[in-house]
Amino acid sequence: MRIALLGGTGDIGEGLALRFARDTDHELLIGSRDPEKARDAVEEYNSVLESHDATADCKGFANEMAADRADVVILSVPPYHVGDTVEAVADVLDEDTILVTPAVGMKGDEDGMHYHPPGTGSVSELVAQRAPDGVPVVGAYHNLAAGKLANIELEFDLDTLLVGDDADAKETVRNLTNEIEGLRALDAGPLANAAEVESVTPLVINIAKYNEELHDVGVKWV
Amino acid sequence: MRIALLGGTGDIGEGLALRFARDTDHELLIGSRDPEKARDAVEEYNSVLESHDATADCKGFANEMAADRADVVILSVPPYHVGDTVEAVADVLDEDTILVTPAVGMKGDEDGMHYHPPGTGSVSELVAQRAPDGVPVVGAYHNLAAGKLANIELEFDLDTLLVGDDADAKETVRNLTNEIEGLRALDAGPLANAAEVESVTPLVINIAKYNEELHDVGVKWV
Repeated sequence: MRIALLGGTGDIGEGLALRFARDTDHELLIGSRDPEKARDAVEEYNSVLESHDATADCKGFANEMAADRADVVILSVPPYHVGDTVEAVADVLDEDTILVTPAVGMKGDEDGMHYHPPGTGSVSELVAQRAPDGVPVVGAYHNLAAGKLANIELEFDLDTLLVGDDADAKETVRNLTNEIEGLRALDAGPLANAAEVESVTPLVINIAKYNEELHDVGVKWV
Repeated sequence: MRIALLGGTGDIGEGLALRFARDTDHELLIGSRDPEKARDAVEEYNSVLESHDATADCKGFANEMAADRADVVILSVPPYHVGDTVEAVADVLDEDTILVTPAVGMKGDEDGMHYHPPGTGSVSELVAQRAPDGVPVVGAYHNLAAGKLANIELEFDLDTLLVGDDADAKETVRNLTNEIEGLRALDAGPLANAAEVESVTPLVINIAKYNEELHDVGVKWV
């Protein structure tokens, strides 16, 4: 499969790129609004992977071109860019392209981070609303510890929750996710259940803030 | 210490009673609106504990009497009874009594459970608002798997998150919680962070609903 990571040059995008590259045989298309930035990121990822004796089928593109070529498009952009990013690539999406959304709306204050969803109820539902008709949307990778993900020397045992209304699309993302070593995808139901999944993201940040023994917190459902 | 479990006759109350009874030396006061019901529950708990070679210092009372005698009062009642229960025991609470709230407002539909907080933003903040001035409030035990807790033959490894504005009260609840075998208390910050903690409760129910391999889901933050 061909996986596009739009906004794949930072944070969660980096970790997903490195882990998909090392643990799977899928083709990775790193997207950025600036294709030069995408190619720089790819160069960096390839050098990290080579230093760990891994090779990757990984190339850099402008977002639209990456999305056009992909079977799965992961919107690893900040929440306030999600709507624009979907619109920027809408013309190249179709029913065979799965749109995956990991972004979460949050607001911080002195107490910590708070869940701050858009008017649609969740970012996942916002993506579904903005995506062209028939394009399946799956919420995933919200609560992954970005630092742990990007440190490919680190072995982990983490869960990520999936929400989506299209069972086939969710199954594809589930299988893809389970190919990453130490990562388990669990189903949290339809998109209507996205808010409870997304709101774990501010929570893991708060847990890291208030517990010295924990950093870059992830989650296991047991 | 003397721990009152108001509404300690059902669900999470049962599990907390059995685990506190078995794993700690604290005195347990099981409260119910109907003291007869509380005494029946105590009889049942004692018989479970005896069959596991554990003894307990556990007695049944009307809620108000249990709260009056306790150092820590756990409001293990359904969310729609929390406000009334706090008011019913308000006269016997003081600055030396810690009020602990595990309840979560939820609404279910065909998709699953959804977080449905009161106008105060969370049940924890509702309790703080209704409690007499100076009574410290700690949110805890929201996301425990009630069935796992109540099955004392079962060993588990679970986390529970604490929120509260009174550091000493939170520390007391933390120490108390950590006395239960396999349970770890983590700090999630002040009461203002309660919503993100409470909203994990509908989420664990959804995870159990959509994943055949998981039942009675709890959580570990890693």
